[in-house]
Amino acid sequence: MHEKIHRVVIIGGGFGGLWTTRGLATAPVRITLIDRANHHLFQPLLYQVATAGLSSPDIAAPLRHILRDQRNVEVRLGKVVAIDVTRKSITSKDGTELAYDTLVIATGATHAYFGNDAWAPHAPGLKTLADALHIRQRILSAFESAELAASLVDREEWMHFAIVGGGPTGVELAGMLAEIARHTLRDEFRNIDPRRATVRLIEAGPRVLGGFPESLSAKADAHLRSLGVEVCCGAPVTAIDATGYALAGASVKCRTILWAAGVAASPLGALLPVARDRAGRVLVEPDLTIKNHRDVFVIGDLASLQQDGKPVPGVAPAAKQMGAYVAKLIRARVERPEKFPIANSNVAVSKPFHYADYGNLATIGRMSAVVDLRGFRFSGVFAWLFWLAAHVFFLIGFRNRVAVLLNWATSYWTYQRSARIMLDSENETR
Amino acid sequence: MHEKIHRVVIIGGGFGGLWTTRGLATAPVRITLIDRANHHLFQPLLYQVATAGLSSPDIAAPLRHILRDQRNVEVRLGKVVAIDVTRKSITSKDGTELAYDTLVIATGATHAYFGNDAWAPHAPGLKTLADALHIRQRILSAFESAELAASLVDREEWMHFAIVGGGPTGVELAGMLAEIARHTLRDEFRNIDPRRATVRLIEAGPRVLGGFPESLSAKADAHLRSLGVEVCCGAPVTAIDATGYALAGASVKCRTILWAAGVAASPLGALLPVARDRAGRVLVEPDLTIKNHRDVFVIGDLASLQQDGKPVPGVAPAAKQMGAYVAKLIRARVERPEKFPIANSNVAVSKPFHYADYGNLATIGRMSAVVDLRGFRFSGVFAWLFWLAAHVFFLIGFRNRVAVLLNWATSYWTYQRSARIMLDSENETR
Repeated sequence: MHEKIHRVVIIGGGFGGLWTTRGLATAPVRITLIDRANHHLFQPLLYQVATAGLSSPDIAAPLRHILRDQRNVEVRLGKVVAIDVTRKSITSKDGTELAYDTLVIATGATHAYFGNDAWAPHAPGLKTLADALHIRQRILSAFESAELAASLVDREEWMHFAIVGGGPTGVELAGMLAEIARHTLRDEFRNIDPRRATVRLIEAGPRVLGGFPESLSAKADAHLRSLGVEVCCGAPVTAIDATGYALAGASVKCRTILWAAGVAASPLGALLPVARDRAGRVLVEPDLTIKNHRDVFVIGDLASLQQDGKPVPGVAPAAKQMGAYVAKLIRARVERPEKFPIANSNVAVSKPFHYADYGNLATIGRMSAVVDLRGFRFSGVFAWLFWLAAHVFFLIGFRNRVAVLLNWATSYWTYQRSARIMLDSENETR
Repeated sequence: MHEKIHRVVIIGGGFGGLWTTRGLATAPVRITLIDRANHHLFQPLLYQVATAGLSSPDIAAPLRHILRDQRNVEVRLGKVVAIDVTRKSITSKDGTELAYDTLVIATGATHAYFGNDAWAPHAPGLKTLADALHIRQRILSAFESAELAASLVDREEWMHFAIVGGGPTGVELAGMLAEIARHTLRDEFRNIDPRRATVRLIEAGPRVLGGFPESLSAKADAHLRSLGVEVCCGAPVTAIDATGYALAGASVKCRTILWAAGVAASPLGALLPVARDRAGRVLVEPDLTIKNHRDVFVIGDLASLQQDGKPVPGVAPAAKQMGAYVAKLIRARVERPEKFPIANSNVAVSKPFHYADYGNLATIGRMSAVVDLRGFRFSGVFAWLFWLAAHVFFLIGFRNRVAVLLNWATSYWTYQRSARIMLDSENETR
């Protein structure tokens, strides 16, 4: 009997993968969860690590630790390089093959440069902890370089910061950067005045926070300007290199460009024999399986699904809901195979996945946010407190949430950011 | 008048350099503090970062931030590559030259492999934050590799940990590693039992904690054994490579070797025209200046000074006392040049530096320590509480001491270590 237990392989330990795993806690299955990193990352707060407000362990917890009591899971550190849906197996980079009865792919998204991959080294994006630490190092180094600059021209280049992309991440980064320049670094330099740094947020579309209602975009825009951010909408960046960027025909000297503009699906989607959308996301069936392979699920940011004429957005709540849905379906199939057959049929017998959209929120610097709860819209300090409560609530399961709150509380009182540590001037990217 | 203000250049922002700087807060001098890193590091707790108990910002604070209100200081990020005591100037790696009236060198020590530099990549040492994060990654990776090992032989190699050097750092690392294997990782793996890991502490001398009285060494030895550490004294490691080490004629397969054996003075000492001792430390005069150059001070771990027939030890209290002494002397010279002439004379007119030794303490794993206060010796839980109080007291000035205490408190209650974060399996050394 033991050797016939249903094997579930889950690739990716983000919100989608972890919620699938937890949803199967009491199911009669054997789960292998594979991730390239040893931790689950609370991505909504990643910008806080990038801007030195929080340190890595505040928002990351080892997957093994989260799942230590769930005895039907084995966590593996590894990178998947091949998927064979016919033989029903996956292969890791170290050559290990692993057979599955059900496969769940939840490897999310990475940042994309719209075909301009040469921009990547000059405009780092923010998806992993390593990205966040790299951006932190870049920001802190820029002020150090400005302080030591040999000429005024050099100094100006180091004191100009550009953030490309006016979505929630871009808005959060711009707000924090303005706060660091205006308040955090106050009095610390002798040759420069950090308050004179310019922070420019560049959005190709007509307004920041394009996914929000216009009234909230306008609020965010006004608040960013009050923080001293230059908001430039309506024109795309057309070139980026080590010396700066080009915008609306003019080239601007700039040494610190951060990329918050585009996301592309994880390359793992390309290993599947199914169609993908323009961003590389896998087109999934209403039950989140892929066409002709009802034993393969794709969830989270990697999945492309239309609902009520709109795409399901690539946000944490959607990934969690998908994970919970898939766990329930797998369990039903294993426990009641007569009712939920896995056999390859194109007719999905199960109830389709439905994304419940509870709203959208984004924060803008210190004590300000915009919230859109199904049409109920508000902004300002109250929105920020709502944002904080929601995030701290969802940090549950991380043992550091008290420490996170404490760090935050002191940050907000003192304008200080406790994680302003560069490892060594010799090791810039560590 | 302004252009004739006395210029003090201080190299190194550790205990020695920072205490000199602070001691000159109200002195009529212009100070430049140069360090390769942007932070002051509370080195006594570095082993906690290496063993994932604390995160970097818990024990490091930006030098700029610490000194923001001291208006006579400029902090510079940079690496000094040349010192010209005749022209009275130093040169940084980027080519900048800086003139001084008084120079204070406090660049400390690094780890030494007794002429076996080839051992370095296989047995990392612990002096900087980067070192600590590297060791953390090595320890966490070892258990991951053991979990995935293809053979029992492989697994054994990953499950054996060797720490070379039985001084305070070696004892602390061994105790923490044993605790991680026995408690922290409990239930998290499926193919290995972390409690079966072996931790071996290797000391060439006859006993661990050789700097402590014999009775306390014996206590530490017994406590380490009770934690499951194999203590091997009396024979040196004679070879180290990627596959293991050689001890007492036998070669042992081991993938994780940590180096806590030797320290060598910072290479900056070699740039000075004075004699050095066997470990590369600079022989200083009783007033901590160097021979024939009464305007150059060398302090902290880089200084070699005999007192009452014994060398002043390379510990934090000695560095702080030296810093305070030097600051006072510089101030006296500037304010009362008639009484304290800087002119090159071999007769030191000032009162010689005197190290006040208040005692010695080391911790051994969870809730146990040994303390030797001028002959008043104790060990166990009470010693550990004393150790904790002393360290938290000296963390004053770091804004995170509440967070540190909180992390500690939860660690000690739950045996968990919150900073167990590896960045990515692809980026092993980040």
